[in-house]
Amino acid sequence: MVMNNKEEIARRVAALRRLMREKHLDAFIFPSTDPHNGEYVPDHWKGREWISGFDGSAGTAVVTMDKAALWTDSRYFIAAAEQLDGTEYALMRERVEGTPSVAEWLASCLSEKPAARVGVDGMVNSASEVAGLTESLGRWGDFEVVTDIDPLETIWEDRPPVPKNKVVVHPLEYAGETAREKISRIRRRLTELGANAILVSSLDDIAWTLNMRGSDVHCNPVFVSYLLISDEEVVLFIDADKLTDEVVAYLQGEGVATAPYKQTGEVLSRLGGGAILLDPGQVNHMLYHAVNCEVLPTASPIPTLKAVKNAAEIAGFRQAMVRDGVAMVRFLRWLEEAVPAGGESELSVDRKLTSLRAEQPLFKGLSFDTIAGYQAHGAIVHYEATAESNVMLRPEGLLLLDSGGQYLDGTTDITRTIALGPVSEQERRVYTLVLKGHLRLQALKFPEGACGSQLDAVARQPLWQEGLNFLHGTGHGVGAYLNVHEGPHQIRMEWKPAPLKAGMTVTDEPGIYVEGKFGVRIENTLLITPYKETPFGRFLQFEPLTLCPIDLKAIDTALLNEEEKSWLNGYHRMVYDKLAPHLDPEEAEWLKKATSPLP
Amino acid sequence: MVMNNKEEIARRVAALRRLMREKHLDAFIFPSTDPHNGEYVPDHWKGREWISGFDGSAGTAVVTMDKAALWTDSRYFIAAAEQLDGTEYALMRERVEGTPSVAEWLASCLSEKPAARVGVDGMVNSASEVAGLTESLGRWGDFEVVTDIDPLETIWEDRPPVPKNKVVVHPLEYAGETAREKISRIRRRLTELGANAILVSSLDDIAWTLNMRGSDVHCNPVFVSYLLISDEEVVLFIDADKLTDEVVAYLQGEGVATAPYKQTGEVLSRLGGGAILLDPGQVNHMLYHAVNCEVLPTASPIPTLKAVKNAAEIAGFRQAMVRDGVAMVRFLRWLEEAVPAGGESELSVDRKLTSLRAEQPLFKGLSFDTIAGYQAHGAIVHYEATAESNVMLRPEGLLLLDSGGQYLDGTTDITRTIALGPVSEQERRVYTLVLKGHLRLQALKFPEGACGSQLDAVARQPLWQEGLNFLHGTGHGVGAYLNVHEGPHQIRMEWKPAPLKAGMTVTDEPGIYVEGKFGVRIENTLLITPYKETPFGRFLQFEPLTLCPIDLKAIDTALLNEEEKSWLNGYHRMVYDKLAPHLDPEEAEWLKKATSPLP
Repeated sequence: MVMNNKEEIARRVAALRRLMREKHLDAFIFPSTDPHNGEYVPDHWKGREWISGFDGSAGTAVVTMDKAALWTDSRYFIAAAEQLDGTEYALMRERVEGTPSVAEWLASCLSEKPAARVGVDGMVNSASEVAGLTESLGRWGDFEVVTDIDPLETIWEDRPPVPKNKVVVHPLEYAGETAREKISRIRRRLTELGANAILVSSLDDIAWTLNMRGSDVHCNPVFVSYLLISDEEVVLFIDADKLTDEVVAYLQGEGVATAPYKQTGEVLSRLGGGAILLDPGQVNHMLYHAVNCEVLPTASPIPTLKAVKNAAEIAGFRQAMVRDGVAMVRFLRWLEEAVPAGGESELSVDRKLTSLRAEQPLFKGLSFDTIAGYQAHGAIVHYEATAESNVMLRPEGLLLLDSGGQYLDGTTDITRTIALGPVSEQERRVYTLVLKGHLRLQALKFPEGACGSQLDAVARQPLWQEGLNFLHGTGHGVGAYLNVHEGPHQIRMEWKPAPLKAGMTVTDEPGIYVEGKFGVRIENTLLITPYKETPFGRFLQFEPLTLCPIDLKAIDTALLNEEEKSWLNGYHRMVYDKLAPHLDPEEAEWLKKATSPLP
Repeated sequence: MVMNNKEEIARRVAALRRLMREKHLDAFIFPSTDPHNGEYVPDHWKGREWISGFDGSAGTAVVTMDKAALWTDSRYFIAAAEQLDGTEYALMRERVEGTPSVAEWLASCLSEKPAARVGVDGMVNSASEVAGLTESLGRWGDFEVVTDIDPLETIWEDRPPVPKNKVVVHPLEYAGETAREKISRIRRRLTELGANAILVSSLDDIAWTLNMRGSDVHCNPVFVSYLLISDEEVVLFIDADKLTDEVVAYLQGEGVATAPYKQTGEVLSRLGGGAILLDPGQVNHMLYHAVNCEVLPTASPIPTLKAVKNAAEIAGFRQAMVRDGVAMVRFLRWLEEAVPAGGESELSVDRKLTSLRAEQPLFKGLSFDTIAGYQAHGAIVHYEATAESNVMLRPEGLLLLDSGGQYLDGTTDITRTIALGPVSEQERRVYTLVLKGHLRLQALKFPEGACGSQLDAVARQPLWQEGLNFLHGTGHGVGAYLNVHEGPHQIRMEWKPAPLKAGMTVTDEPGIYVEGKFGVRIENTLLITPYKETPFGRFLQFEPLTLCPIDLKAIDTALLNEEEKSWLNGYHRMVYDKLAPHLDPEEAEWLKKATSPLP
């Protein structure tokens, strides 16, 4: 995109206000979301960035006839202040005392306006978001929320189109179950839930259900579409330009009809009889309210079906992890010599690692933008090196490296924190405590039915003992050549009631971030497998899928107990055994050392 | 109570049906609860027991014109089957596949009846229970739920009266804060919540607020009453027979008016202006709907205020724990010789322990009925020895002993599992694993804001590793000379969002129950205290209040790691240091051995 500047932003806001006047709107709200409520947003829907100039991943811009403000969270306070400088946008720091909510701010700006009209594009907000906004505005006064206007269609002249990339069929060899079979499982769940139709709006749920992949979203192999599954029909709403003859034939074979993407609402409005399941947190407001039949407002059953991997997906994960591990081992071995030689930076090691992954068969791209944070940058949880922030690596201190690849047979997500040379006492201590938490969670056995929120403390316990903590989640599901962040289960402090099940993937990634100094995170992707059945019930366990040594150089072995040492040694033995056959003798020799058992 | 027999039950059911016919009722439901939704129910409200003959603590009796059934949970399947034998009641085993819910059963029994009328006494069911029942019946057909009839008033001829025991003032020296101050804190919380009144219906909340105690409920020093706190007035609804001149003067001094217990509904109905906070899970249906002003249906703020103990209460707990510990030490020393000498039983050791507690100053009674379960009886979680079940103790195997006392300055709750002689390998292993869980939770540090559901896994982890688990909670709050089970916080697998706060008491009581063989539970009552404040936030820790050795004889030391040994040794050192000054030399000598450090 063209770099924004203050004149350009002023011009855009002025155009918006002309339209607002015409439509009798007193305010308009631009969120970070798109019609499919995904983690990454295609350029076409980056309206908040276009209208405000702020390009962070989370933020809300609000414009009235004489004021403008942008809300974002602490990750982006500095960047947002810079990017909004010189514009009329006031920066609203979320979760800072004294910062008004959007509703409070609008109430005070529009206090003189009886029955003020607040616009929000109902296509790019979920039904529950619009309901929440309407409710909070209602607490502050008499507002009308107008949802059927997308001002960007009129005022954004060079707006990027909705992506028209071709979709492809994901081979059954990797998917392990035909679309037809998945649809029939979904229909059975719908019947159990008391619905006879569902509108699927999450792009990864659609890709999983149909065994299709696309390239419309950064790092996520999904494609823009909606999917309607009812007792009578299955309709994929998709731009015809995205379909090849092969895909059309495939869809027909699986019993899936197609219709234009733009017709989704119209088709929904004609549905009659029975109840349609619409997930209010996923389906956008416009489509949610386009329906005229009965709605079952509940969570979609598809995320849970998708989260439990089948045998082919698990086999694919294992193979992808071997290739990803080989790339990581080559990278780590290279790094050991490259850093002391000089000339390497956060950006250059990212490029090197990406090129090593790209050499591997079935590689399709990164599963997310690499986080390579050296020393103090490692303490910025969502750090992404840019030309401006990039620093050179020296043979000392810690490099936090969180990365992953998309392979046709699996998605990887791994974090290693690497001692580039001597480390401080504090770094060594924190590194070892994080490792303890990582190992304890990985070794945990737990009863079937437990959810991640119940297990989270196990990874944090060694950190809590020292007055340390981290505020991100401890683990998330990982897709099978799909999104690297996948629900419904999570391991985190907040309550997420989705139980962990055998066949699910989940990451194990505790960390500690010492501001201005360094960050440590150690992450493996795990598979949940059956452990044992006893008179006390069925128990599950974790099997590490990730195959890569954990840096031994920064460990304070005195802090590890015997169990923890044996867990680490056992993991390293497995890493060596599985990777060595795929390495040349010198690489294998290096790995032997990197995985040598702690005494 | 008179033993029920089948003729007597038949007579009572017949009387009920005559009344039902008169009132045009097609069914009547009798729950286990009373108007105050407490854990123990005064005899006056034991209507389910009276109508069915089943005397377990949990059960629901339902009678139609031609059928009767009783629902209870697995704890009582055997007892209920015996007690219902020969009556027309069908036993409905809750949570067993194929068992209908009350609503399903009623729907099938009354399927021929259009607009059937189902009676339930709205005084002995919380508002949310009646709402839930109405909703589930509504799913099955066209039912009218009638809540303004208490058939027992008419048909239960020798019904015990509502208790008329005298109430007493709880000295400020132990309460630490005047009723006036507590009321003013409650009023501030009400203002923050947007209410200007509250009806307090939980008896321990009333006793805490007013610094008064009673003896109406088994083991719980509370008294039957309601308390209305509004901006303008504080009214205690209580039977005048319960009040002495001293108490009347005390209440006047604290600004509390009194009114007859029976007038609660009438006074509520006249409240005008503002909003009254009514906790739908606590306040009974009739009083909830007696109100004509606006209702704020949310959890009462009092349980959280009550749960955080003040300095006087904490000092009282410490003193009570010393006396309780002295009684426990004397008991354990006696037991060591008494069992081999022969003639002791589950019931006799309960009597002995109670008598040793009763010798202690400020003793007021037991805080719950002692659980003394020898060998296989220890595996029955809610076991209470009776003349029929009582077994003799032999110098072998494990005795599980869960007991507690009410003292004027604190309430105690302690479980020890004691090796009466040689124990099996399995007993030793399970005992040590439970001990590991107990010690790990006790040693845990955790961030402020964490709730018990997040910490629960720490106590279970060593058990889960071996495929063991227990299905009860790991911990509950303990009142200050009040109920031994106190909310709102808990440590358990199920989600309880109440955060743990410094000043709260909580038990730490993991266990394992091997059916038909033995049970192990080890319980201390803990105090939550500040741990440290770091750049990562404020952290809390547990301090054991309970002072009593943990039996060393059943430990497999090979299963304990160094940390666990040092935690146990540290606890035992503290127990010795705090108790020894209160023991005679021989007792101190015994305690020295019982608390000797593990190598």
